Amino acid sequence: MELPPEFQIIDQYFKKLSCPEALDLTDDAAIVSLNQNEEIVLTMDAMSEGVHFFKNDPADLIARKLLRCNISDIAAMGAKPYGYLLALSLPDQYFNHQWMNLFTKGLAHDQKKYGLSLFGGDTTKNLNNMTLSVTMLGKVRKGQAIRRNTAKPTDGIWVTGTIGDAAMGLLALDGKISTNQYFIDRYHIPQPRIELSLNQIASAAMDISDGLVQDLSHLTRESRVDAVIYTNSIPLSNEAKKFQKDYFQTYITGGDDYELIFTIPVNKENKALEESKRVGIKLTKIGYCIEYNNGQIHILDEYDNEIKLGKLGWSHI
Amino acid sequence: MELPPEFQIIDQYFKKLSCPEALDLTDDAAIVSLNQNEEIVLTMDAMSEGVHFFKNDPADLIARKLLRCNISDIAAMGAKPYGYLLALSLPDQYFNHQWMNLFTKGLAHDQKKYGLSLFGGDTTKNLNNMTLSVTMLGKVRKGQAIRRNTAKPTDGIWVTGTIGDAAMGLLALDGKISTNQYFIDRYHIPQPRIELSLNQIASAAMDISDGLVQDLSHLTRESRVDAVIYTNSIPLSNEAKKFQKDYFQTYITGGDDYELIFTIPVNKENKALEESKRVGIKLTKIGYCIEYNNGQIHILDEYDNEIKLGKLGWSHI
Repeated sequence: MELPPEFQIIDQYFKKLSCPEALDLTDDAAIVSLNQNEEIVLTMDAMSEGVHFFKNDPADLIARKLLRCNISDIAAMGAKPYGYLLALSLPDQYFNHQWMNLFTKGLAHDQKKYGLSLFGGDTTKNLNNMTLSVTMLGKVRKGQAIRRNTAKPTDGIWVTGTIGDAAMGLLALDGKISTNQYFIDRYHIPQPRIELSLNQIASAAMDISDGLVQDLSHLTRESRVDAVIYTNSIPLSNEAKKFQKDYFQTYITGGDDYELIFTIPVNKENKALEESKRVGIKLTKIGYCIEYNNGQIHILDEYDNEIKLGKLGWSHI
Repeated sequence: MELPPEFQIIDQYFKKLSCPEALDLTDDAAIVSLNQNEEIVLTMDAMSEGVHFFKNDPADLIARKLLRCNISDIAAMGAKPYGYLLALSLPDQYFNHQWMNLFTKGLAHDQKKYGLSLFGGDTTKNLNNMTLSVTMLGKVRKGQAIRRNTAKPTDGIWVTGTIGDAAMGLLALDGKISTNQYFIDRYHIPQPRIELSLNQIASAAMDISDGLVQDLSHLTRESRVDAVIYTNSIPLSNEAKKFQKDYFQTYITGGDDYELIFTIPVNKENKALEESKRVGIKLTKIGYCIEYNNGQIHILDEYDNEIKLGKLGWSHI
């Protein structure tokens, strides 16, 4: 009996990405069990054509960015990636070997890199706009997930890596600055900071997806603290330093960094720096938390003068 | 500090649908733990405008159908609904109070009916086509999930409720038959058979989403059995009986029934009928499994003559 197209696609492209929990993708569901000392962390992110990626972006890059945005949320909770479900809603022109093959190659690449498996999902038709969503599962020791509402006054504010490169990548792809492969790669291929184990070190954490200032404002609001950050402490890549004067606001408000922003009590800073050394990920202290007054973020320049931004990052809406 | 629009929407519409696992929707993830004797069943379904629902369908009906399609998958596994994550990808015109309010009212209605909570999700913009996806979690006692690949020759083939009403609802909405509110309701508001506990009774089960014959063919293929079913055993509603002669093929190949199809060893049929009585859901035996020869389904008319169908149901692709 011939398989209908959806099942042919599952057989040909997705079965090899699955694992025992996925039940060979033959049922409409996966089954997951846990050890007694584990919890599951769940996150879901959607992306669509023309909003989160360009219509003609290579399929493997779309796949990898989709996974990595979700992995970044798992990393921010202090959990380790476990598996994911994938909903593909695709216009007719993508149902061909070339696209499906490249897309699933991208998934396979990052599954291997991050120790993930495909648990299940849905493949359906969309009349005219590719829309993808992933639900990612992570595992964490019971009670050790890192929240974003638990920062305290005097805790330091830290970030991983460098800030603002992805926003410059988007400007390059939009033709607003000259092309720059380093920036473009940082936009297409985020580096979720999953190796870093900040459980029992960070007091609060989240990932930076919508811009450093905007995302920090979620952390301060939920934690009921205010923040002071120093412009000359924000870590910039060598490429970004070349553009510093003109684009600094872009760096701290632009989206798609997928670095972590987190807080550390002063007496745990040494532990954080040891962990940084262990995994080879740069951590930079950019400021500290102060008593709550509406969750405000005070941005100070090199002369300690406060800067007002025109725009607090951006929202995907 | 003013909230950006995505967070305003979460605060205003979604927070009240959430639960402790959702961490007040303030983090980008939910945390789930399990008792030692439980497993999590996970399923994901996507729907998009013009493919799975009509552009102008009422927002509450779209919400309820989306939840119910996923709940039906949970029911088919013999699990009980627990919670869900929701990805909304919406064109600008849906970001208004009227639509969001009606949509979340629909969610709230069915959350209450099925004992569900919102665990998390994502709300993003779509350039031109509403696309929604849900990842649903269910709980089941360890080892008691019902698979679809475990039917055996001689097991009876059974279905819940009546078959084909939703397909007629779609014809009515398309103007291909005269309008009929019973059929249209069956199309818009599936009744996932979650009350029925077939664990340790059914040998295999799945839900009927793409048409009885096509979905049964998945069960036979995966179980490595063939099937014999009798046209005059297929349970039809009183409304469907009025159209019987002309639309019988539509009934058994049309989608969106969201009834269960399952197999029962002959010595457990009495238990199934007791369970049917307990929950008030009609169960009907429509045939039985035979030895495997490519997973074929033999459809016999009232004279025991085999019928060939022009079309094996339909696929969402």
